[in-house]
Amino acid sequence: MRRDDPRLVEVGAKAEATGPAPAQRDAREGAPPQPGLEARLMRRLLASLGDPALRVKLWNGESVATGSGDPVAVVGINSRAALAKLLLHPELYFGEDYSDGSIEVEGDLVKLLELVYRGTAGATFPGALFRLAGRRRGNTLSASRENIHHHYDLGNDFYRLWLDPEMVYTCAYFPAPEATLEEAQIAKMDHVCRKLSLRQGESVIEAGCGWGALAIHMARRYGVRVRAFNISHEQIVYASGRARALGLEDRVEFVEDDYRNIAGRCDAFVSVGMLEHVGLDNYDRLGRVIDACLDGRGRGLLHSIGRDRPAELNAWIDKRIFPGAYPPTLRQMLSIVEPREFSVLDVENLRLHYALTLRHWLRRFEGARDEVARMYDERFVRTWRLYLAGSIAAFDAGALQLFQVLFARHSNNVLPWTREHLYARRD
Amino acid sequence: MRRDDPRLVEVGAKAEATGPAPAQRDAREGAPPQPGLEARLMRRLLASLGDPALRVKLWNGESVATGSGDPVAVVGINSRAALAKLLLHPELYFGEDYSDGSIEVEGDLVKLLELVYRGTAGATFPGALFRLAGRRRGNTLSASRENIHHHYDLGNDFYRLWLDPEMVYTCAYFPAPEATLEEAQIAKMDHVCRKLSLRQGESVIEAGCGWGALAIHMARRYGVRVRAFNISHEQIVYASGRARALGLEDRVEFVEDDYRNIAGRCDAFVSVGMLEHVGLDNYDRLGRVIDACLDGRGRGLLHSIGRDRPAELNAWIDKRIFPGAYPPTLRQMLSIVEPREFSVLDVENLRLHYALTLRHWLRRFEGARDEVARMYDERFVRTWRLYLAGSIAAFDAGALQLFQVLFARHSNNVLPWTREHLYARRD
Repeated sequence: MRRDDPRLVEVGAKAEATGPAPAQRDAREGAPPQPGLEARLMRRLLASLGDPALRVKLWNGESVATGSGDPVAVVGINSRAALAKLLLHPELYFGEDYSDGSIEVEGDLVKLLELVYRGTAGATFPGALFRLAGRRRGNTLSASRENIHHHYDLGNDFYRLWLDPEMVYTCAYFPAPEATLEEAQIAKMDHVCRKLSLRQGESVIEAGCGWGALAIHMARRYGVRVRAFNISHEQIVYASGRARALGLEDRVEFVEDDYRNIAGRCDAFVSVGMLEHVGLDNYDRLGRVIDACLDGRGRGLLHSIGRDRPAELNAWIDKRIFPGAYPPTLRQMLSIVEPREFSVLDVENLRLHYALTLRHWLRRFEGARDEVARMYDERFVRTWRLYLAGSIAAFDAGALQLFQVLFARHSNNVLPWTREHLYARRD
Repeated sequence: MRRDDPRLVEVGAKAEATGPAPAQRDAREGAPPQPGLEARLMRRLLASLGDPALRVKLWNGESVATGSGDPVAVVGINSRAALAKLLLHPELYFGEDYSDGSIEVEGDLVKLLELVYRGTAGATFPGALFRLAGRRRGNTLSASRENIHHHYDLGNDFYRLWLDPEMVYTCAYFPAPEATLEEAQIAKMDHVCRKLSLRQGESVIEAGCGWGALAIHMARRYGVRVRAFNISHEQIVYASGRARALGLEDRVEFVEDDYRNIAGRCDAFVSVGMLEHVGLDNYDRLGRVIDACLDGRGRGLLHSIGRDRPAELNAWIDKRIFPGAYPPTLRQMLSIVEPREFSVLDVENLRLHYALTLRHWLRRFEGARDEVARMYDERFVRTWRLYLAGSIAAFDAGALQLFQVLFARHSNNVLPWTREHLYARRD
């Protein structure tokens, strides 16, 4: 349906709605058709999202268009029940309804979600008005194990379909936007190692090591000894197997244990993409662990998804993708190091790199969608598509950030003089 | 007096004290001489400072040595009154007594102060135990004017004696430690401009512009229009004269006014070395000013002396050098930007660059000490020497930090892709 479609009626400054909704239709002869209750409620929801340029088609044939310019997508809402849920808690039920197919999107899903993020930036997400008081999952030792299992133990075969060959499932670093995902993940690992100024023979503790790519990279390329911790059983099994296959068992030890149980000393402490799963309540605990690991020349790096201002994780992501996760603000991240004898040396925000990383993942995922559907089902495909697309949108719109925080003991004066070494040619 | 001097007596594990203090002398025939009350109090003070490797000579001929290895300096305390004040409030009266000559230091003053900073790192400065409840000066509009006048209106002729030719009185950026001070101050200005991604024709607001070097540099080298604010009358007069002499009146406007009165819009907001004088109470006010200045593509940079953990400024520095000043922690700095629609993009800690900057200043200052003494007096020379030496020590020991914080509107996606451009060759 186009803007000049005669059935469209202006509703408010920017919005239009029309269609055959007989119960609410103005009965006067010749008067333009009035939108039905459903269409008006939908329009109000869209207004609260900042009137993004899109068109919504309801199951009853009515249609609502908002924003100026061509719509980036047409959203189909296929039942009254789906609309009711959406109105009740849009943040949660857009995802639920999209996953089960009762909401469909034609057009650019990423752009649609980005418009919504931009439209609601600075505001509390309108869903919060209706939010059902649901207690989110905490991160006790056992809850953490369950939360991590939920996501990371989906099966290595699944992740292998769309991650890079090294299986790095965190934000890559693209020296230039044209770099491949493979190059960018290696560049990210080098970026981290360079920030930490790793020297041959030093010892490193890694908290939350995924499939072990960084630990193995540090040992192979920087000659350090690594102890890497993770509570995902599948990941630890995979990582240990890889270390053995590469003959690195004596240099890299993969430990299936919680970061809270880390003991021993090291020259560098690194955690890439774990902090999101730690939870604010445990930051002090994590800080004490890091403090106990590092001596006077110790350095640390925390890499995490973050926010500009404190906010809960999107309700649907919390329910379906990352139970118990929380992206902190930079100030919250700094609360881990400030109480200890650390100086913050460097903070870098890589949010646009994460948006690009996710674009690579989404493209590979779509290329493997039939295989994913065979491994799981159609609902799973739609859930993961929405998660990846929504994450691109959130990083693009600035609703999410990616912070790398480097710190060292404040008495440590043997640090690189500038950051120029991070940008030296890689040969 | 050397370690093997037979008159020295071991006091405690590391400390020695002796000398002719007849009142307290052990009267038994043949027993080693006992230290007097003054020496014992002095020793206790030194223990609370972490037993730095130094020797203290009292007016009565007694001597106290602490630490292991050769003493870095010999401290002479020339009267009982000086010692009494020092014991009462060492943080304040070391400076007071050094300035008036009732405490003298032979040897490495910087190293001596650094040992004390390192020895008390993490602890509350022991002086706090005795601190007289003194209300520090605030930073209301009129108090700020007085505070700034106290330091920055000492006379341009004085600062010209030991600053670089551009009169930059903030931390320089040394691409390599061998760079000259002149080179390093220009490199710092370029570093700031590059971080802000200044583009020809853009407008910049600078809060706290010193003698105008950065404002003039931005206009000349980056083709931007600048409005630069400062409440130091002498500095504004000097800066305006320089802009006129360079024919830049149409591109750089120097305004004698408080940052709280800044109005209007700009593409970039920059403040180098002003935040130290703003005071925590006014951070929200400053944040609102910045927020009102920047549009969707706006960038901002705050450059300030800081701390790893919250602490008051050294009492003597507050009294004699920078009344009302306060170096914030990074988290406190971020409280300026977090409540607004900003993303932190980059934080860099340049504390070792400030230590080196100060070494250059102190060397030049000592080279001009006779001239300074003629302009002011001997006490002034000693006060400034202690301030410069103490600042070197504080940055070297990590008691002070130097943070550059870069931020932008969180919807701004037209930012440099990486930070590599900061390290491009300067031709």
